Amino acid sequence: MDFRSDNVSGAHPAVIEAIAAANHGAAAGYGHDEWTQRLGQRFAEIFERPVTVMPVATGTAANALALATFTPPWGSIYCHAGAHINVAECGAPDFYSGGARLCALDGAQGKLSPAAVENAIQREGDVHANQPAAISISQATEIGTVYRTDEIAALGEAARRHRMVLHADGARFANALVSSGKSAAELTWKAGVDVLSFGATKNGCMGADAVVLFGDERGGELAYRRKRGGHLLSKSRFLGAQLEVYLANELWLRNARHANAAAQRLAAGLERVLGIAPAERVEANEIFIALGAPVAMALRSAGFLFYDWPGIGDGGARLVTSWDTSDEAIDALVAAATRARGGA
Amino acid sequence: MDFRSDNVSGAHPAVIEAIAAANHGAAAGYGHDEWTQRLGQRFAEIFERPVTVMPVATGTAANALALATFTPPWGSIYCHAGAHINVAECGAPDFYSGGARLCALDGAQGKLSPAAVENAIQREGDVHANQPAAISISQATEIGTVYRTDEIAALGEAARRHRMVLHADGARFANALVSSGKSAAELTWKAGVDVLSFGATKNGCMGADAVVLFGDERGGELAYRRKRGGHLLSKSRFLGAQLEVYLANELWLRNARHANAAAQRLAAGLERVLGIAPAERVEANEIFIALGAPVAMALRSAGFLFYDWPGIGDGGARLVTSWDTSDEAIDALVAAATRARGGA
Amino acid sequence: MDFRSDNVSGAHPAVIEAIAAANHGAAAGYGHDEWTQRLGQRFAEIFERPVTVMPVATGTAANALALATFTPPWGSIYCHAGAHINVAECGAPDFYSGGARLCALDGAQGKLSPAAVENAIQREGDVHANQPAAISISQATEIGTVYRTDEIAALGEAARRHRMVLHADGARFANALVSSGKSAAELTWKAGVDVLSFGATKNGCMGADAVVLFGDERGGELAYRRKRGGHLLSKSRFLGAQLEVYLANELWLRNARHANAAAQRLAAGLERVLGIAPAERVEANEIFIALGAPVAMALRSAGFLFYDWPGIGDGGARLVTSWDTSDEAIDALVAAATRARGGA
Amino acid sequence: MDFRSDNVSGAHPAVIEAIAAANHGAAAGYGHDEWTQRLGQRFAEIFERPVTVMPVATGTAANALALATFTPPWGSIYCHAGAHINVAECGAPDFYSGGARLCALDGAQGKLSPAAVENAIQREGDVHANQPAAISISQATEIGTVYRTDEIAALGEAARRHRMVLHADGARFANALVSSGKSAAELTWKAGVDVLSFGATKNGCMGADAVVLFGDERGGELAYRRKRGGHLLSKSRFLGAQLEVYLANELWLRNARHANAAAQRLAAGLERVLGIAPAERVEANEIFIALGAPVAMALRSAGFLFYDWPGIGDGGARLVTSWDTSDEAIDALVAAATRARGGA
Repeated sequence: MDFRSDNVSGAHPAVIEAIAAANHGAAAGYGHDEWTQRLGQRFAEIFERPVTVMPVATGTAANALALATFTPPWGSIYCHAGAHINVAECGAPDFYSGGARLCALDGAQGKLSPAAVENAIQREGDVHANQPAAISISQATEIGTVYRTDEIAALGEAARRHRMVLHADGARFANALVSSGKSAAELTWKAGVDVLSFGATKNGCMGADAVVLFGDERGGELAYRRKRGGHLLSKSRFLGAQLEVYLANELWLRNARHANAAAQRLAAGLERVLGIAPAERVEANEIFIALGAPVAMALRSAGFLFYDWPGIGDGGARLVTSWDTSDEAIDALVAAATRARGGA
Repeated sequence: MDFRSDNVSGAHPAVIEAIAAANHGAAAGYGHDEWTQRLGQRFAEIFERPVTVMPVATGTAANALALATFTPPWGSIYCHAGAHINVAECGAPDFYSGGARLCALDGAQGKLSPAAVENAIQREGDVHANQPAAISISQATEIGTVYRTDEIAALGEAARRHRMVLHADGARFANALVSSGKSAAELTWKAGVDVLSFGATKNGCMGADAVVLFGDERGGELAYRRKRGGHLLSKSRFLGAQLEVYLANELWLRNARHANAAAQRLAAGLERVLGIAPAERVEANEIFIALGAPVAMALRSAGFLFYDWPGIGDGGARLVTSWDTSDEAIDALVAAATRARGGA
Repeated sequence: MDFRSDNVSGAHPAVIEAIAAANHGAAAGYGHDEWTQRLGQRFAEIFERPVTVMPVATGTAANALALATFTPPWGSIYCHAGAHINVAECGAPDFYSGGARLCALDGAQGKLSPAAVENAIQREGDVHANQPAAISISQATEIGTVYRTDEIAALGEAARRHRMVLHADGARFANALVSSGKSAAELTWKAGVDVLSFGATKNGCMGADAVVLFGDERGGELAYRRKRGGHLLSKSRFLGAQLEVYLANELWLRNARHANAAAQRLAAGLERVLGIAPAERVEANEIFIALGAPVAMALRSAGFLFYDWPGIGDGGARLVTSWDTSDEAIDALVAAATRARGGA
Repeated sequence: MDFRSDNVSGAHPAVIEAIAAANHGAAAGYGHDEWTQRLGQRFAEIFERPVTVMPVATGTAANALALATFTPPWGSIYCHAGAHINVAECGAPDFYSGGARLCALDGAQGKLSPAAVENAIQREGDVHANQPAAISISQATEIGTVYRTDEIAALGEAARRHRMVLHADGARFANALVSSGKSAAELTWKAGVDVLSFGATKNGCMGADAVVLFGDERGGELAYRRKRGGHLLSKSRFLGAQLEVYLANELWLRNARHANAAAQRLAAGLERVLGIAPAERVEANEIFIALGAPVAMALRSAGFLFYDWPGIGDGGARLVTSWDTSDEAIDALVAAATRARGGA
């Protein structure tokens, strides 16, 4: 009944079990435990190349650390106006980078375009101006769409033309991945992503994300930044165990497929009832739709939770599905909407 | 067999159970869940006054946030040379405060003295010099001693004379508390502590500490700093649940009593075998003792893990006990030391 | 012949004389000299109230220090998209504030409107979002217009509604002042300005600006920030002497009147020749006008220097006059434009 | 009569003349003027190699920028406890570096020794500890001694062993240079100095110092840092003109020789009168001597200004000579001391 965010869900039972299983005996602290140590190999398999993996407990930490590692204090980070780093992290990237500047750009479907970035880059090499340092995309986007690999590649080329890096905020990376039909490698470094905030919390972990570097040069720097930010957990085994089970037996992909399918079911149901399509294509696990004020009100009265999303029309709403969203909950919401519309 | 640190221990089973119990249904994110919401009242009971509580996942985060909240970028933080904030946080307080300066001072028993602080304060009000902002003590200290309430009060008075705050890094606060025979209130705000890093991770949690403010003026600022530092967890219920169970049924006190008693047992055993006392009084759960090189080597060969602590004598070692240290492990270590000394 | 900026001009001869006159004997360092000491009284007379004055050598320093004094690291600073702090200081306010965020807004005539600011303020009190801290206006604006006192007052009210301060970047404050016909008090604190970057460099000094605080609470903090930023000059007498002579005998007002009159003469001449008006009202000492490409090219060939200003039309140009712009230079430029247009 | 500091002196008349001479016509701003542009070549001649020169208005700015360019936020800067960066800049290096840490070390003669640095470096490569980044020496030292080239070389080797840079705070570089009998190259990069704060303000300029990089890799970064710090002067010609005349016709060397000779004359006079030698060898333009309280008091009564310097004995005083200290002033001080001692 709670469609406010995928972070209102708890952790997948397997994650809790893995934590309990890791809770035996002593283990070296600060990432020297066996669970954390195994992550490098596991991520390398998933991404089909050696990577540097730094687990952290929040996506904001992952984003801020990832960006700070590549952005000097006088750098500019180009992102979509709706990006989490722009609107929902209280300036974490600004803080971690020592005062770099976010350049928020508009773009259709919640996506950044190379043209928008190129247009925003001004006075390159001019000491009076902040200098291009990073492009940051959200994958999936903040409005539930998914960048195609060719779109990523074009942004990667723009990044390289200006000696920037391409960062992906993958708070919903798994949702994007299963939606795309691509491999993790294809959706990231093969398309030009240099550094990924690999989200797992929203998709079934308790509190576990990771910075993934596809190059090997900045790993040392990142490690100091993480510790200095207070993001190196002493009992790191519990982060390691979460991520390990998340990546085992395709749990992450199954969870994401479930959430995406739930979004499709919900979108189809609402479209059927309301006679209008969502404001954006539903490619991951978020739906943005103009419910109409009466329906929105009726749903709230019936106990359904979701965020208002003004600007997409009357009764605009954001509805997010998760790894544990049940068909029953969806059907109940659609039924309530049907009733509100005077249907059966 | 692992005496390197109390953070090599896992979480108390009750903590895992509480996490599992909290893992049902949806819960509002970012601290708006019921578990986190209940913490204010619980901490108020423990400290016998209203407090502001901000849970975080690491002690380094708690320290850095606590200090940054009271220290302007041009401030000085006076601490013992051995303080965790000085030697083991990669400059986290410097980072979070915007470049404040740590003034590391010597002091017997691992303790800061008002005289040492007063002596270090120079050029107050002089624009060319960093200005006094905070005194930070570790309670228990980094060498296993515990500040008495009169010692804290004297530091609190020194702090107020120079318009500073008194911060306590309570990574091992419970160990200090049960050792002191005082109440939590007596050991903190009644003695002059303004802000406490309340440690729970080392004493049986999985990853849960908290900043506790005894005044109410800076709570808002602290909340922004926490979010901006990436330390506001989305699925905060799991932090809340850890801290709640930790404080229920005296689990925290029982764990600390266990660890302290284990330290006493170990210290007594080693003193008996070695014929020398620990280098410092064992008042919490850490023992610093000159094992002699042969004993140190023999213990390592037998599989016991601990840190070398040069400077307190030949074979100097730090041994830390925990909430789950067994009598068997202690006795095995003492027996191994006995054998190494040629005893039975 | 150089209309690129008012900073291509040297210092007024009286400024050099004052520097030479101050160069006798010893004087206490770091602002304790008599010249600097006299500034407080002098500024108080000019602004008709006690003020805190902190001289610095650059306008960027004045702006960054002024804003950092009132903006927490998680604060937002609302400014016009064309503001110097936004486009020409390489992120100095971001740096000095510890990573606060600039919110660049559009606005007619180069001016910020209360509506634009109100519209941009979102999620006040929400820990996930940067929080309103300051509104910053350029007076005169970056395109040569001047805020009226009622416009300032409306922004001041908006600032106070959200517990923000109103900052004015007065790099060309004198030009605005003489244009406005108001007193210095009326144009600043009486209209709601809390802190002013008082520019003198562009209007006849060698390198001297000042932060002026109209309240008295943050003076101490500002002093530490200035020193810490490396902006407290040891031989401060030379800053003091510049500002003192600048403010004596209305030198600053005479210089600004000269520059503004030169801009009027130039604007009138060009309008006569080109048959079009400047893109913006010429209220201070800057002219933005679409010269047409042939005229622009001809002027450059004739040795006239100015910046291209694309976006206001074909051959768009920015022309800046100064305290030492001669009628001869203006008339020569207009004559060259006339020739380029095929006139006599 | 003012021996408090060499910064109580004004500027050499030739410097004022150069400023006045530069004050004709228009000149490009922000360092693109001819005076600033000529500095690269001039410094290259003096240092016998290509260098990057960045003029700034204060020594604190030069130090902070120089150090920040080479020190990551998690770096450690090793300096003498008495270093200006440690005690007299209100944390400017901490600010500019993003929170790096100064490690203040003791050392005889005001000098840092490689052994002291090596001893202070701990836990290299350990993510929990700040990491070695820079050694910073004051040349001349803060107590008027001068590092010999072999001493510098030994520190340079220590720096390189730990991948640090060697920085020299040359606020009194000219005084050290003429004292050493070495060339500017020998005293800097040939001995292992990587970056120099080239001081000119104290030795006869009005307000002009420079960062000098002996390698060429960080020049770009430094330029952004300077602008961002508010230290790029718009009318930079006046900085350029100061430094140009300072380096022409050996003005800098003549001034320094004068100041050093004055210190020798003063030291000899006081030693003769008091019967004791200065506390430290007088190798540059500073004298630290225990005057005895009666003499100190008598000198103050007679109008002589100097700083108390407790810790070197009764009536401990610091006396600084300058480019404009007259023999008459010195002889008057010695005569007053003689009278105070009951002499003629």
